[in-house]
Amino acid sequence: MDPIRVMDVKESILQDNDARAEAVRRELREKKVFLLNLMGSPGAGKTTTLVSTIRALRGEFRIGVMEADVDSDVDARAVQEAGAEAIQLHTGGMCHLDAGMTREGLSGLVPDGFDLIVIENVGNLVCPAEFDVGQAKRAMILSMPEGDDKPLKYPLMFEVADIVLLGKIDTAAYFDFDREAFRRNVRLRNPDVPILPCSARTGEGMEAWYEWLRGEIRAYRKACEQ
Amino acid sequence: MDPIRVMDVKESILQDNDARAEAVRRELREKKVFLLNLMGSPGAGKTTTLVSTIRALRGEFRIGVMEADVDSDVDARAVQEAGAEAIQLHTGGMCHLDAGMTREGLSGLVPDGFDLIVIENVGNLVCPAEFDVGQAKRAMILSMPEGDDKPLKYPLMFEVADIVLLGKIDTAAYFDFDREAFRRNVRLRNPDVPILPCSARTGEGMEAWYEWLRGEIRAYRKACEQ
Repeated sequence: MDPIRVMDVKESILQDNDARAEAVRRELREKKVFLLNLMGSPGAGKTTTLVSTIRALRGEFRIGVMEADVDSDVDARAVQEAGAEAIQLHTGGMCHLDAGMTREGLSGLVPDGFDLIVIENVGNLVCPAEFDVGQAKRAMILSMPEGDDKPLKYPLMFEVADIVLLGKIDTAAYFDFDREAFRRNVRLRNPDVPILPCSARTGEGMEAWYEWLRGEIRAYRKACEQ
Repeated sequence: MDPIRVMDVKESILQDNDARAEAVRRELREKKVFLLNLMGSPGAGKTTTLVSTIRALRGEFRIGVMEADVDSDVDARAVQEAGAEAIQLHTGGMCHLDAGMTREGLSGLVPDGFDLIVIENVGNLVCPAEFDVGQAKRAMILSMPEGDDKPLKYPLMFEVADIVLLGKIDTAAYFDFDREAFRRNVRLRNPDVPILPCSARTGEGMEAWYEWLRGEIRAYRKACEQ
């Protein structure tokens, strides 16, 4: 296996971020590359979900992954083993990726050959929600052990999400998680967002997630051609 | 029950933070108030652990709590029901508390009558580690569902912690968590920090945590008198 490429990326100035994000989005549209910004808490199951997703979709799409982390390259190794090209972005202590870091990462990943690039953002329910990285869509994972009240406490993350995965549902017996309360709490922030219960470990509910992603990629490509 | 007091707190300039933190620490020393900065991911179990701690120690100490949250007052309600004075600090989107916000919160809580004030920081393994809030000690909770690799990915949080609680151990059967690997990963960041496995739900291991806290408060008071 190729060694993991690691890039140190630097923060861009906040005011510039939206303009930079639009530039990234424009560039990726020209190349018909669908960029997914995957967010969630530390340990929510982002990497495990991503590994399952790569295994399920690698026959249909050429997939690249940018793993954002304060430090370490454990996630990039895991996704590379699953069959995707991966680059590890070290944020140097920063709690999120921004559009400038994403642009740097794209230059290291060489995006031209990919259909789908997934950014696994830093594990954090606050800061990544504030920074547009130029993605086509944002997905967020809330794992059942984290509790059904999280949309009340981290509102922006649930507001900006285009899809909410409710993960680790195989552990439901161990946690007092009220799914209906969770749905109500999500709906307060984002009335129409799809909420998909799933478990990357058992596979339950994962097909609905893959289908959502396939549909979004197809719709994006059509839009790129217009 | 009293209504929950809610304060909107504003970020102080980063460079000033250390000086402000020292001023908070000096003020609290004069009043012999032990300030604990409690940190962890969203859903790690900070509030549940805090509620158990209040119930166990409220006969020995007068306890105040500052609940930091981006939004909502669900945690302040929970700790107030457990028998502590509580104030909710809204950070207005900020991902951590800083010393200036802490000082504002203290003015709302009126710290003179307390032996122990706990700050429940914003759920986040990155940013709160960077900001000294003027605490006497920092405790962090990593819950078993989050995974044993987290010290590799969020190094600063484990470096600055004075104690690491390994929480939700009652759910161990459901997760592939290697306790020895976790210990090794923590030790890379912080060779001597105590690591206490516990479950706030079942009570397992909690007495060791209460004892640690009792000992630290006693030692702090002695130091204040010198």
